[in-house]
Amino acid sequence: MDLDEFALRIGHRYRQPELLRRALTHRSHGAANNERLEFLGDSVVNCAVALELYHRFPRLTEGELSRLRANLVNQGSLAAAARRFDLGAHLLLGEGEVRSGGARRPSILADAVEAVIGATFLDAGFDAARGVVRALLGDAIDTIDPATSGKDPKTLLQEYLQGRRMALPRYSVIGTSGEAHEQVFEVECAIAELGIRSVGAGSNRRSAEQEAARSAYELATRA
Amino acid sequence: MDLDEFALRIGHRYRQPELLRRALTHRSHGAANNERLEFLGDSVVNCAVALELYHRFPRLTEGELSRLRANLVNQGSLAAAARRFDLGAHLLLGEGEVRSGGARRPSILADAVEAVIGATFLDAGFDAARGVVRALLGDAIDTIDPATSGKDPKTLLQEYLQGRRMALPRYSVIGTSGEAHEQVFEVECAIAELGIRSVGAGSNRRSAEQEAARSAYELATRA
Repeated sequence: MDLDEFALRIGHRYRQPELLRRALTHRSHGAANNERLEFLGDSVVNCAVALELYHRFPRLTEGELSRLRANLVNQGSLAAAARRFDLGAHLLLGEGEVRSGGARRPSILADAVEAVIGATFLDAGFDAARGVVRALLGDAIDTIDPATSGKDPKTLLQEYLQGRRMALPRYSVIGTSGEAHEQVFEVECAIAELGIRSVGAGSNRRSAEQEAARSAYELATRA
Repeated sequence: MDLDEFALRIGHRYRQPELLRRALTHRSHGAANNERLEFLGDSVVNCAVALELYHRFPRLTEGELSRLRANLVNQGSLAAAARRFDLGAHLLLGEGEVRSGGARRPSILADAVEAVIGATFLDAGFDAARGVVRALLGDAIDTIDPATSGKDPKTLLQEYLQGRRMALPRYSVIGTSGEAHEQVFEVECAIAELGIRSVGAGSNRRSAEQEAARSAYELATRA
């Protein structure tokens, strides 16, 4: 495992490489682990992303900025960044975690990303940490769309139709299958004015509706 | 209102004084208010205090650091800082808020403190903002005690007695008074080994017990 290479990819040269090593050490590996760095890094990434969003969206309210940030900084997004940079290959885990696939677990990956950001902050200050945040999350920050980010498909579809003064979609259950404890619902979403009918499936009616709305939204906005 | 004087007291000379003015402008005063700066400042103060605590308490876990920070950064502590620096005198409020005493309202004061920190961050970067955080909250940070911070009196008392291998205190309701909807409970806290009996009152049994524990803890630790 070449830590220098990983450091190069995230764009920071560590004066104290032991900080990076610590950031990649899960608690299952020993007492000198990354948990305190994760505490620090969590606040740094939130601060750095707040600053990016503040500048990028001068007209959004603080509530909208908060929502955007929550969609950029969460376990899923941080774990995805970890995967893009192959962080899992550099993790130091206890034997049990190695065997059970800890290097791919989203919570472990996300925590390590925060710890790496915290380590950079300690190593060279806020602006260096901000650079690593940009390396890790910059693409997501640059492409986030306040109009759609974090909204579920039914809400997106409803807003889209209301914006065009169209009637709301109609959802109807068109089928169920499977045993009681693993039933699958099929729901149709119909938008009369656009001639759209889409179908979604899910383990309950609500998730099937969301899936149907997702397809309908794609059809409507592509048209 | 001399903003320069306020800036001097919090230890930062603003290159863009309009940022400080904006930070002190409540939404009741107009559209160009401090709400977006507050969003930014909230993350900056949490990050700055995280860094202080990280260095100050090298042996605390991330959970303990989080608890300490929550006790340092909250509406009450931020409003108290605002009062020490007479921030209320510099607030720009709408007429209605001026009349109803908005300049003394803890939520308005706390939000303005966060906004001032956000404004400093934009004006001159993280280290400048960190300096203002130290000016505003440094005393609280320097004197916080991880052993007691944020713990309720019953917990404190119990930990104190357990640390001395003494029996736990006994709480008993010794009286109630008042109508059903505004009853007052009186609870006695007795610590046999120390010969301590204290009494607390409250609108329910739990708060009366906490008050009794608070007195007993003071008596026990003073002894």
